[in-house]
Amino acid sequence: MIEKLNMEDVLAMRSDGYYSQRTAGAKNAIDSVLPIMKEAIKSLPQTEFLRFADFGAADGGTSAALWAELISGLRKDGNIEHIELLYTDLPSNDFSTLFKTMQGMHGDPSNAYQIQNENVFVHGCGTGFHRQLMASDSLSLGFSATAMHYVSEKPCEIEDHVHMVGGQHEERALFEQRASEDWQKILLARASEMKSGSQFIVLNFGIDEEGRYLGHTGGHSMFNKFTEHWRALLSSGNITQEEFRKATFVQHYRTLDEFKKPFNNSESPVSKAGLRLKHARTQLTKCPYQKAFIDSEGAMSPKQYAASLIPTMRSWSETVFLSALSSRSPEEAQSIVDAFYNSYEAEVAANPDGHAMDYIHIIMVIEKE
Amino acid sequence: MIEKLNMEDVLAMRSDGYYSQRTAGAKNAIDSVLPIMKEAIKSLPQTEFLRFADFGAADGGTSAALWAELISGLRKDGNIEHIELLYTDLPSNDFSTLFKTMQGMHGDPSNAYQIQNENVFVHGCGTGFHRQLMASDSLSLGFSATAMHYVSEKPCEIEDHVHMVGGQHEERALFEQRASEDWQKILLARASEMKSGSQFIVLNFGIDEEGRYLGHTGGHSMFNKFTEHWRALLSSGNITQEEFRKATFVQHYRTLDEFKKPFNNSESPVSKAGLRLKHARTQLTKCPYQKAFIDSEGAMSPKQYAASLIPTMRSWSETVFLSALSSRSPEEAQSIVDAFYNSYEAEVAANPDGHAMDYIHIIMVIEKE
Repeated sequence: MIEKLNMEDVLAMRSDGYYSQRTAGAKNAIDSVLPIMKEAIKSLPQTEFLRFADFGAADGGTSAALWAELISGLRKDGNIEHIELLYTDLPSNDFSTLFKTMQGMHGDPSNAYQIQNENVFVHGCGTGFHRQLMASDSLSLGFSATAMHYVSEKPCEIEDHVHMVGGQHEERALFEQRASEDWQKILLARASEMKSGSQFIVLNFGIDEEGRYLGHTGGHSMFNKFTEHWRALLSSGNITQEEFRKATFVQHYRTLDEFKKPFNNSESPVSKAGLRLKHARTQLTKCPYQKAFIDSEGAMSPKQYAASLIPTMRSWSETVFLSALSSRSPEEAQSIVDAFYNSYEAEVAANPDGHAMDYIHIIMVIEKE
Repeated sequence: MIEKLNMEDVLAMRSDGYYSQRTAGAKNAIDSVLPIMKEAIKSLPQTEFLRFADFGAADGGTSAALWAELISGLRKDGNIEHIELLYTDLPSNDFSTLFKTMQGMHGDPSNAYQIQNENVFVHGCGTGFHRQLMASDSLSLGFSATAMHYVSEKPCEIEDHVHMVGGQHEERALFEQRASEDWQKILLARASEMKSGSQFIVLNFGIDEEGRYLGHTGGHSMFNKFTEHWRALLSSGNITQEEFRKATFVQHYRTLDEFKKPFNNSESPVSKAGLRLKHARTQLTKCPYQKAFIDSEGAMSPKQYAASLIPTMRSWSETVFLSALSSRSPEEAQSIVDAFYNSYEAEVAANPDGHAMDYIHIIMVIEKE
């Protein structure tokens, strides 16, 4: 999940706890699929050893508790099979933190499942998940959380907005087309990797039946706010028109129908590869920062709330705005981006009503015949 | 191989070519085992897919040409089996450079064997090689170069020298004991991982039949020179007695006999685990910097030679001296260590005769019954 890499760059100077706190929402969403994962490991296919994979895992922090519980559960039930867990992400990912976490050298010691259990082996793979990442017919159980909204290439700039959710019809169509091709590639790669009878359980950012998506669940819409504050910098002459348009997220939020499409036709390449969609649903995960603000019943000031909310947005979005300013010196670009988030934060501090970052996930259980 | 990680820190500000140049000797030694490796892949055990491993691989740069040639050779011979190559090192290793190299995003494009061949998958493992690193009975071919002279813990400080090769009898005995236990652990871990009929081919720094070892092959002895220049800083009051003794390499150079010992007794745990030593020999690899100096026939000045030789030594040794100064500020420690290498470099520049860093490797072919 690219967000967290950037988060680590951005937050490198802050304390450890800060990082975990900022990913609380993503972790809550992952924790919610624990029952599905527990069900899946009851019917793992017969193999020489168990191979699990976590695709687009970043530093593995948000899913570590899930894997720790699943693996200790298997061992408690008397399963002594050797387990290999392959974490995948882009090559620039922070694999060192990942390997340290699972050995108890970083973060929460209860996540160090590699040393708490016998014969559990943690591996990494630094190749993008649009390609096949392991030998065919070797995967016992696949998992991915909040990673596959990144498309393999930006099909166009969004001229009047920063994200495809606010794009014109033609722009959205180009993103949809790219995301559709990517989704097929992702599924065909997984189909090759998966053993017959294995499952791939995937949570993705997407658009639900009510048209809701990340930061757009009633109240203010986060991506519209990004666009407003970015446009304000254009109006004030701080950025150029070209810099305005280059700030385009390389993401597509698929609808539930877009996710389901490859499975609806028995003649599709995905169906022919043996994949079946067992289950699909959408899920809203409330913004943990807004919840903390409301629960504080006034103990937290609007200013404090704004100072907690904006960094969680900034952690994964900052790279988009910095990249748009790539023709400037790093210092100048950083100063403009600071001003951008500061103006958003000031707006929230002035009136926090309706500002939040709720998550919308599409959750799917996919099985290989 | 810890050397290269440190090298990357040290040389981070220098150009790409500089790095490759500094590892020329290590790469020459690896290239010399290509015929043994080619022989080994002729008789790989039957498996669902081929799994190769490179233990203590650092960023994978020095062995990449070897693996590229082996894999393209297999494909040319019509082998279409899926291949997974697992690179292992400590969690702090630079796995990102490794993953980029094999995909053609960094370094020599001819090393990008992952994209030049079908169905080759590169994985990493950030756990030390004293432990088992993958499921039992899953490894088709193991390899390790210049990594296993690092012992798992420093058994004592070497009081009057910086390396066990210059230690007192009792000090050497403690290092030998730790290295012996480590070697058994390493071999038993590999025995669990290896398929019946598979081989583990390992090049290690060690002491040959003539008592030669790294930088000690006639002429000046590198570790004695390190000690002399480090002691000069003590004499001049720049470092304390405690800092002098704390500069102790966490390494043991095993003799050929020490390497062979676990195999000589059919009742040893290693023999009982099914490992057999098929072949063992020692090898001298000439210092490529001295060779370039001599071959230049005067075109390279002694000063230029010194400026090429000392950085290759510094790349893997600097961390030892910096660590010994850990109670000082980083700036102060760095300044002392700069003075240390500068004085060694000045000695070489004044009279280069007999200064070199020849490699001595012990090369072994180990088979699992």
